[in-house]
Formats: sequence, C-alpha cells, structure tokens
Amino acid sequence: MDKQNFMLGIVGFGGMGNWHRELIDSIDGLEVAGIYDIKESRVDYAKEVGVKAYESLEALLSDERIDIVLVSTPNDLHNPIAIKAMKAGKNVVSEKPVTLSSKDLQEMIDASKETGKLFTVHQNRRWDEDFLTMKKIYDENLLGDVYRIESRVHGSRGIPGDWRQEKEHGGGMVLDWGVHLLDQILLMMGDKKLKTIYATETHITNQLVDDGFTAELRFENGTEVLVEVGTSNFINLPRWYMLGVNGTAVIEDWNLKGEIVSAAGKDEADVVPVRTAAGLTKTMAPRREDTIKKQELPVVKSDIRDFYRNVMQVIEKKEEPKVKLPEVMRVMKLMEAIFESAKEHKVVEFE
Amino acid sequence: MDKQNFMLGIVGFGGMGNWHRELIDSIDGLEVAGIYDIKESRVDYAKEVGVKAYESLEALLSDERIDIVLVSTPNDLHNPIAIKAMKAGKNVVSEKPVTLSSKDLQEMIDASKETGKLFTVHQNRRWDEDFLTMKKIYDENLLGDVYRIESRVHGSRGIPGDWRQEKEHGGGMVLDWGVHLLDQILLMMGDKKLKTIYATETHITNQLVDDGFTAELRFENGTEVLVEVGTSNFINLPRWYMLGVNGTAVIEDWNLKGEIVSAAGKDEADVVPVRTAAGLTKTMAPRREDTIKKQELPVVKSDIRDFYRNVMQVIEKKEEPKVKLPEVMRVMKLMEAIFESAKEHKVVEFE
Repeated sequence: MDKQNFMLGIVGFGGMGNWHRELIDSIDGLEVAGIYDIKESRVDYAKEVGVKAYESLEALLSDERIDIVLVSTPNDLHNPIAIKAMKAGKNVVSEKPVTLSSKDLQEMIDASKETGKLFTVHQNRRWDEDFLTMKKIYDENLLGDVYRIESRVHGSRGIPGDWRQEKEHGGGMVLDWGVHLLDQILLMMGDKKLKTIYATETHITNQLVDDGFTAELRFENGTEVLVEVGTSNFINLPRWYMLGVNGTAVIEDWNLKGEIVSAAGKDEADVVPVRTAAGLTKTMAPRREDTIKKQELPVVKSDIRDFYRNVMQVIEKKEEPKVKLPEVMRVMKLMEAIFESAKEHKVVEFE
Repeated sequence: MDKQNFMLGIVGFGGMGNWHRELIDSIDGLEVAGIYDIKESRVDYAKEVGVKAYESLEALLSDERIDIVLVSTPNDLHNPIAIKAMKAGKNVVSEKPVTLSSKDLQEMIDASKETGKLFTVHQNRRWDEDFLTMKKIYDENLLGDVYRIESRVHGSRGIPGDWRQEKEHGGGMVLDWGVHLLDQILLMMGDKKLKTIYATETHITNQLVDDGFTAELRFENGTEVLVEVGTSNFINLPRWYMLGVNGTAVIEDWNLKGEIVSAAGKDEADVVPVRTAAGLTKTMAPRREDTIKKQELPVVKSDIRDFYRNVMQVIEKKEEPKVKLPEVMRVMKLMEAIFESAKEHKVVEFE
C-alpha cells in the first residue's frame, strides 16, 4: 500500500500528448514524469504547465523512474520510438493509428515479445458513450436480429493542415478516424468473421491522402456494416444508424441525441398512401403512431481513465490488456484492405 | 381544333390503374375508353365509377376508338400484353418496371419497331419534385462539383403482400422502387458513363424477392452515388443527400423539408474542439454559424400530366418521347447488374 505511483513519459507533446497529461492528472497511481518534443513551442508549453521537458528522447528513456512511455508523435514515428522504448525497458502505450502498415506493426509486436514489455494502443474511442450505447443495443438484442449498421463521422473542415495531410507521416481519414470506427465495429461484431470489403475514398481538399472514405463490410452472418468518414459534409447524417428486424436505433450526434423506434405489434388495416407530385406509395407511407413504440436510448456511461487503470494492472500482471495486439493487427489489416479496395475498385476478401 | 380526344384503354385496374384514371380525368384531350381486369372486384369498381369494363383483353384491343393502351398489370404481364397491344395497332404505355429482364424488354422494343407504334414507360417519378429540385441543384452547380449523391427511400411496412412478394411476377424492391431511383440518377448524371456497381440485397420480411437493397454506383467523372431502398426502417434517413465541394444539400422527406448549407468563405482561426467521453476532435467539430450560409431549397414544381401530354404529342409526331427506350433499357441492365453484384458479392463493370 506504500506502492509508488507509476511514472509515465510523454514523447510528442502536441494536442493528444497534452490531452493525456490532463487525463493522467486525474488518475490515482499514475503520474507524468515529463515530456519530450522536438518543437520549442511545446517545450515552452510544458514549462508553463509545470511539466519537466527532457532534452532528448534518450534522456527520457534513460530515466529509470519511468515505467510507461506514451508515444503521441506523428504516426510514422510510433514504430521506431515504441521499439526503442521497449528495448530501453519501458512499457509502451502508442497513440492510434498504431503505425502505417501491418508489417510495421508486426515489428512492434515482435519487440514486445522479445523484451517482455507491455505494448498497447490508445484506442480511446472504445470508451465513447455513443459506441457503448449502440453496443449495448446490439448485445441485448433490443432491435431483434441486427442486419445493418451504419457508423458515420461527418465534419466540414477538411483534414487538419499539419503532418496529417501527408502520406509519409500516416495522414488521411482512414488512419485517423477509420481506425476508431473500424475497431468499434469489430468489437461489436465479436467473433463473427468479416468476409468482404468494398471501399471508396474521397480527395476533396487533399490529393495526397484520403480526406474521407466509405467502407461496406459484409460479415459471415450476413450483417452489412457501412463505415463512413467525411470532412466536406456541411450537413451531418447521424453518427449511428442500426437496423434490426424489429426496430431501428439512431444516435444523431456527440451529445447522444437519438432514440429507438420499434414495431408495436399492431398493423394498420387501411394504410393511407403518401401522394407525391407524381405518384403514390403505400409501401413507404409513414406508420401511424399507435403501431410503433419509441424508446429512449439506454445510454451507457464510461470512464476513459479505465484505459490507464488497465495498463497499470497489466504491468502488475493482474489483468489482461483491454486493447489486445491481435485486435490492433486485425484493424490494421482491415485498413490495408480498404486502401486496396478503394484503389482497385474491387471487393477484397478478408477472412 | 375539332380533333377528338385520344382514347385510352387500361389493362389492369388495380391501385395504379385507378391512379391513371383519376389523372387522365384532368388532362385535356385524353379520355379513358374503358378497362379490362381479371378480378371481379375491379370490374365492379369500374362500374361504380362509371367506367366501361371490357369483357376480354381482345375486346379492349379490338375497340377501334382506342389509341393508347396502358398496361398496369403485375410486372410479368407487361411484356405479353404490350406486344399484343402493339400488334393490334395500339400505342402502348407500360407501367414500371417495364418488364423483368433486358431480353424481355428487347422483345417489346422490337415489337414497337415492327409495328411502328409508340411504346413508352410510365417513369412517373421523373416528375417528382424532390428529384427535380435535386437535379436543379446539380445542374446549376449550387454546391460546386458534386462528388457524392445519396438517394434513399425508407419505409417500415415490409413489401406489399400481393404478387409483389413473388419473383415470377417481378416482385421485390429493386424492380419496384429501384427502377425509379436508378432512372432518376441516370437522368441526373446525363451522359456520364457508369463504370462500376457494388450492391447488397436484404431479405428481412421476404425470402423470395429482395425487400431492400443498396447500390453504390461509380461514374466515370469519379462521382459516387448510393441508391438505397429499405422496408424495415423504423427511422428514416433523408430522401436525398448531396455533397459538393462547397456545400451539402438535403431533402428529408416527401414534403421537401430540407436545405442547402455551404461554406461562407470565412474560416475559424481557433476551432473549439468537441470533447466526447473518451476523446476530443477539432476535425469533426461543428462550424461556427458565421462560417456557413444556409439557403432554402430551390423547389421545382411539376405537373405529372405532362407525361400523357407528351405521349399524345409523340403520337402526332410533334415531339420526341420524354421517356426514351434506350434510357429504359439502360435502367433495366443496371437492375440486372445490381442483382448480379448482390448475388456474387462482387463489383460489376457496367459501361
């Protein structure tokens, strides 16, 4: 019970590095030892917020107090820094996307095996409440058998104007947001095999990397999943849309506005057709209110600090990692399949 | 100016047959001569509304007063009846889908050539105002270059419980609604070649025919189009969603609720990130109101009676048909490609 805090060193102190620092401030048993960044402005910022800035990566890695290294650099640097840190005897948390290819990821996994050090990835959006709420709806079969899931993130700002616009640094929306949305879907679908992928990319504001994509995933049980990211969308479609045989669930936005609408088990004897300018339809006529029931979403609350709590428990051999390397590898291979499908305009067989 | 009315005979006096009768009542120069239907209840209904009921198809076809035969039977009967009618010297309007395969359609086109009679198809939803409004937005480049179009129709009643559930009668949503949505998209895209198709089908309430589908169409200019029909959707996604490089347009529903949102040419120096339970994002943060402009939809009004006005003008050799047979054939082949793609889980090359 006198156990000292776990000490964490942050390599790359940009927006996400600082997000981690703030988070860690509120986690019992974990403490930021210091940061390393090549940018003077980030070093100045560290001093401003009272955080030690190491003079070099080597200096950080040779600080024996440090148990865990967080790698929150541009994506292409995750691989060399993570491997170096593990070889220096540190446990490593990498920001997402873990790296740019399954080959690079295998090197990182091999380094973890060789050194016996923990290596895991900050797939933080597993703790997002929109995802956890949809997962609960799925797991508890609240819509009956689910046959289609649509997971979308829409913005209208293009992609960020920094290294995220460059291929060699691992820019683009498949790697930036796809890595979250795909990871969520694979978790939700559990052990169901992903059979095929059909994907498209957009290059609206950027030619070098994708600034949006669609990926249609077909699982072995027949469930179809559409994962989509857009950055030139001035009107958003819902964040989540899930179709089951008995009902539909929607989450509109980050504030978890949404609902579940299901059949109430009552049919309309006489459907009033909808008349449009040029035709009529009974099939697509809205239902009478008494034939449906509307429910609030079963909102799931979460605590993202559980990510680091788990990391500490894993280091103490008390828990399994929540973000497992085979899961990370599966998402990486899926992103590679998406790039291939979008480039070749073909269906890619996956599992 | 003493010209007599064009006389039209209706073969198949179900919901759509009666819709035509009501429409024709309000069209100058066109008159319903009578109907033929095999169902007694429909014959009784004809008498009730003061319309002559012929005793047989032959009786209708041999009435020399009749200029035009409307075929509004179940889909599998369009082909034999239309051909018979043309051979009896009648001009023919067929309900949609014109028939069940491109081979059958070619027979009908051949019959039109042989007999010199007009043969056209009631693609009435070319006159729907939601479509015409989106087409105007597209044609007038109100969003800048359009790179993605989504056209959806969602209902929650499954498919109708009559012959529309049976494959041999041409049931299913690709043929019923797809034929409209695909025709609209091909018209909108003009002479741009459709390169590839990836499609999926649903069988939620029906195993014999599709009760919904998605089709991702890729045109030669790079525009991606998603066409989707669902009949187990208890919450609807918007009828139309169109993405251009400068803005987005949406039409929510049959009442043409919707808007255009575009960039106002002003950027935000400091974007306030959105914080979710487990992360933050600037990329997907909503825009500040002063950096976008919202416009009402440029709603286009239409008059579906123009379909029959055109048919009469074509018979008098004064106009080209508005619904041309090569267009009808292109849609039919596209539906065949959708069936193939959905069945084989592969991308089908089209043009």
